Amino acid sequence: MSARLIAVGVGPGDPELLTLKGARLIGEADVVVTPVGDRSDASIAHSIVEGMIDPSRQQLISQVYPMKRDQEGLDAHWEKSAAEVAALVRSGKTVAFITLGDPFLYSTFLYLHRQLRENFPDVAVEVVSGVSSINAAAALAGVPLGLSSERLAVLPATYEEDELTRTLEAFDTVVLMKVHRVFHRIRDLLDRLGLKDKAVYVKRVGLSGQAVFPDLDSVSPGDLDYLSLMIVKK
Amino acid sequence: MSARLIAVGVGPGDPELLTLKGARLIGEADVVVTPVGDRSDASIAHSIVEGMIDPSRQQLISQVYPMKRDQEGLDAHWEKSAAEVAALVRSGKTVAFITLGDPFLYSTFLYLHRQLRENFPDVAVEVVSGVSSINAAAALAGVPLGLSSERLAVLPATYEEDELTRTLEAFDTVVLMKVHRVFHRIRDLLDRLGLKDKAVYVKRVGLSGQAVFPDLDSVSPGDLDYLSLMIVKK
Repeated sequence: MSARLIAVGVGPGDPELLTLKGARLIGEADVVVTPVGDRSDASIAHSIVEGMIDPSRQQLISQVYPMKRDQEGLDAHWEKSAAEVAALVRSGKTVAFITLGDPFLYSTFLYLHRQLRENFPDVAVEVVSGVSSINAAAALAGVPLGLSSERLAVLPATYEEDELTRTLEAFDTVVLMKVHRVFHRIRDLLDRLGLKDKAVYVKRVGLSGQAVFPDLDSVSPGDLDYLSLMIVKK
Repeated sequence: MSARLIAVGVGPGDPELLTLKGARLIGEADVVVTPVGDRSDASIAHSIVEGMIDPSRQQLISQVYPMKRDQEGLDAHWEKSAAEVAALVRSGKTVAFITLGDPFLYSTFLYLHRQLRENFPDVAVEVVSGVSSINAAAALAGVPLGLSSERLAVLPATYEEDELTRTLEAFDTVVLMKVHRVFHRIRDLLDRLGLKDKAVYVKRVGLSGQAVFPDLDSVSPGDLDYLSLMIVKK
């Protein structure tokens, strides 16, 4: 294989939702880089690929996320990560970078991608798409994201209320990310808009503890997980 | 395996973008149903799974789409399709229904799903998510769909201009489906909104003839394909 960085989306968490192409390229790579750290999604990506590596001919690098969430620390992390990956590719290695879900949709890979494009434009990048947690959550909940003429919006639940209201009114299906942070505010908003019974909360799809809550009132504080989302389908 | 209908999304067209789970369940199914017809996406799904079937123990059923696009003909088709699938499952068979992309996002499966829910609620349905052509097109074009705080909208390009304008102004990334029908109208609209150089047209991702057009003015009438979309990324 030619030296390059391959971003492999391993899907939402179920190791079987990896694509055939992703599995092949992880097996063929000289170096496999996975993020590990305090955030549970990082370690999950690591655990999915750990058993697929042949240590006799492949190198497994775990890039540790910074513990603190400050922007400066994150920027420094991704600068270092990009430099490490770029050096490996420039030395002739094929490097697979593992990320949960799809590399181009709300993934940690996008921070590395931006650093590479800005500072190492000579490094070839290939993206192998993966199943997004959005699609997997819809499948688990039995709620289609959209028929052919429908409109779908995906946005963080942390937007201001006016913005959320406009979107909920205009679109047929709305997926709210990061909903664990503002769950009660969202539930109240949906109630006021008459949409509470059109919503379903999905927690940790494809992972241990996965659950679907068609009744938002049955969601307890312990169910508010970082890896969760809400689908509102009119 | 227990008798049920399994909707398997085989991804955007590249047979390697099928998931490990999808491949396993196609291999284990008693009956594999694929749509075939005049629409090219139907035959593509068929060709992806054709080589995976073991004719000595598996039955392959090709459900032919109606040639005409009239609503009555389509409804009659899906009623018949649902009855055929339901009879197989009720007789104890495990039936895999093949669809391009993801079964719950703009797929032909959703018409069958609606018929089954309405008329055969006893038939168990499992959905195996697939890579959507939206994610694959973004990967091919090198255009991320969204970082963590961004908003993504997906809608048919055939909506009226006011609706499209509001969406293009409010969202960070907009994916326009069915754009081949109204390509020149959309190009003119993007030009007026100052977004023409933020748009990329992607044709037949993962299939023969796939192409990326970062310059909308270079798209010729022969490039306007049913299996195409546009990504507008600010």
